[in-house]
Amino acid sequence: MFEICLENVRRNMPLIHNITNYVTVNDVANVLLACGASPIMSDDKEEVEEITSICKGLNINIGTLNHRTIPSMLLAGKKANELSHPVVLDPVGAGASSLRTETALRLIREIRFDVIRGNISEIKSLALGRGSTKGVDADMADAVTEENLSRGIDFVKGFALDTGCIIAVTGKIDLVTDGKTCYVIRNGRQEMGKVTGTGCQLSGMTAAYVAANPENKLAAAAAAVSAMGLAGEIAWTHMEKSEGNAAYRNRIIDAIYHMDGKTLAEGARYEVR
Amino acid sequence: MFEICLENVRRNMPLIHNITNYVTVNDVANVLLACGASPIMSDDKEEVEEITSICKGLNINIGTLNHRTIPSMLLAGKKANELSHPVVLDPVGAGASSLRTETALRLIREIRFDVIRGNISEIKSLALGRGSTKGVDADMADAVTEENLSRGIDFVKGFALDTGCIIAVTGKIDLVTDGKTCYVIRNGRQEMGKVTGTGCQLSGMTAAYVAANPENKLAAAAAAVSAMGLAGEIAWTHMEKSEGNAAYRNRIIDAIYHMDGKTLAEGARYEVR
Amino acid sequence: MFEICLENVRRNMPLIHNITNYVTVNDVANVLLACGASPIMSDDKEEVEEITSICKGLNINIGTLNHRTIPSMLLAGKKANELSHPVVLDPVGAGASSLRTETALRLIREIRFDVIRGNISEIKSLALGRGSTKGVDADMADAVTEENLSRGIDFVKGFALDTGCIIAVTGKIDLVTDGKTCYVIRNGRQEMGKVTGTGCQLSGMTAAYVAANPENKLAAAAAAVSAMGLAGEIAWTHMEKSEGNAAYRNRIIDAIYHMDGKTLAEGARYEVR
Repeated sequence: MFEICLENVRRNMPLIHNITNYVTVNDVANVLLACGASPIMSDDKEEVEEITSICKGLNINIGTLNHRTIPSMLLAGKKANELSHPVVLDPVGAGASSLRTETALRLIREIRFDVIRGNISEIKSLALGRGSTKGVDADMADAVTEENLSRGIDFVKGFALDTGCIIAVTGKIDLVTDGKTCYVIRNGRQEMGKVTGTGCQLSGMTAAYVAANPENKLAAAAAAVSAMGLAGEIAWTHMEKSEGNAAYRNRIIDAIYHMDGKTLAEGARYEVR
Repeated sequence: MFEICLENVRRNMPLIHNITNYVTVNDVANVLLACGASPIMSDDKEEVEEITSICKGLNINIGTLNHRTIPSMLLAGKKANELSHPVVLDPVGAGASSLRTETALRLIREIRFDVIRGNISEIKSLALGRGSTKGVDADMADAVTEENLSRGIDFVKGFALDTGCIIAVTGKIDLVTDGKTCYVIRNGRQEMGKVTGTGCQLSGMTAAYVAANPENKLAAAAAAVSAMGLAGEIAWTHMEKSEGNAAYRNRIIDAIYHMDGKTLAEGARYEVR
Repeated sequence: MFEICLENVRRNMPLIHNITNYVTVNDVANVLLACGASPIMSDDKEEVEEITSICKGLNINIGTLNHRTIPSMLLAGKKANELSHPVVLDPVGAGASSLRTETALRLIREIRFDVIRGNISEIKSLALGRGSTKGVDADMADAVTEENLSRGIDFVKGFALDTGCIIAVTGKIDLVTDGKTCYVIRNGRQEMGKVTGTGCQLSGMTAAYVAANPENKLAAAAAAVSAMGLAGEIAWTHMEKSEGNAAYRNRIIDAIYHMDGKTLAEGARYEVR
């Protein structure tokens, strides 16, 4: 299934509209090209509706959000909803400031997202902000581990049902769920955390995968998550002794560039719960 | 001739003012350093006239344009005109939104550009927007190919005469013309399309080449186009098996860094029509 | 001492708030991760005080400053002062426009900086703008060299006393002083000037080093400067024949990633004056 999802991206070459932060934007553009999609970045409120109309999917990322771009996010998201284009939210830093948490919550209220992808802290901030604290124990550590996996799955499923979105929580173990089915994915390497923007890249890729697989959005989102993790594993095998996180950044994108369906099918490590 | 153009960039080390998008800006800065020029990025309306005054050329790129930066583009361009500094326009995404098309057309009306560099779709959008549809057949495919080359040349020459600018259309075959003479350039590789920003980089380099060769602007623009394509060819020969578009991005800039006049003279593949 | 400063960064993993330019922001994020710190970028005035409150240090860089971000710099800097978080200023392009010079001077008046890091031209512009021309001879060349070293040290010490900040002037020879003690550092390679943003990266790293070594700010700033130069030396030894400034950019960050205290202690070349 992941195999087909990947191949559909290469076949359909979806154009993805990104309203994203200026820190990792270049890597998001290059990873979209690497996976077979095409990127366009645009954030002025006068053009975002028109730009998103010519695209197949929209990726909204609130890293370096500001008062000029927040209205653009809302306009683009609503237009994408109107056109039934898939929309992904990356709530970067939700919980780190009221502006980020409130903006993410407002986006979720006003836009219908197909996927929300973040780390567990960001997702918990949103769940708590919505008052949907069910499953969020005060003692639940921020990382999803083998030990607290069941509770993590319950929590993420609950948030998926509450919002009506696919939720993708990435970390040591990744969880991707629509509230009923949960993919538990064990690809990736911890060294990916030393590369800025692997999460942002994944959100862009998720928009491409979902756009190219409209009939299988959950599997597509899970495939994107697994592909990114697997790229981190493959890239690591190519690292030379003197190389560090800058080389790793490039090698991860390069691994996405070379990944075909068969590689993903063989390398994906997940269970469905 | 291309040889001298390249060497003049290394000799004169022109400082180039860039008002450019935040997606590819880092690569534009590094490619300018690689070719022997120096970059400065500045887009606040309060300082752009002063910044452009201390430079030797200006590169205006409308990717991620917004309402804060459009007035800055106009101010900087007019000041550069006043000082007779060469000005390059990269109309990224013209045709994709009214804001981009209208902004590009307004810039062309209010600023005297030495070179406009874009892909054929962008240039056609501008030509159509100006009502100069001569040569733009409805059936003309977007790509310039060996089959439609003559018509492509006529169209680009017509737009050059119409605007009074050197027009550089890049793609599989690149055309660079002042309306009379047209360089038809066959350097480059299609894999360059998988690297975000090779066009933006070329526009920055074109500003540097023209600034360093004020007596030979057409040849300078053609030399920049040829150098970028040749860098793509050379970089490809250095690619290792596991490398993809991220490595290619770096290797292209590195090929510009090492390119000398002799290499360009020997590697340039073009005819004059 | 430099050894301990470096190890404290890896041990304390300080979160650093960056208000920085969009040209080199990705490299700043990756170098912070490489040295053991964590980056967060945020520049909207509604959130910068909250963001800086959860961090351990603040890095303000005025490259691509604009009217939206200048008030954010002031707010964040004052909040960081209130919380006694270390604050670093990188006055990119001071002297190149009135906006930059005036903004840098205003920031220095209204915020208490722990370190100001720039090249000699930028620092001279600030010193002249403050009227503290003592030691700034009209004939003093812009570069600090072995020939004018004593005068350079006197000038930088004077500016440090005048502002009450640690001043780090980087170039062929780097000077880091609190006005009494001056570290004269001879690490680095001139090819680093062909990579955009090595100065911006250093400013980010300086914020991390000072934040992790609050009892030894001067040594910490000097250690950061030495580490960056040493990374440039180590990275150069890994360069392959076809590689240029793009590869060098990555290799420098990778050298920071692998650098341990012992490597820095052995590779640091400095004297105290």
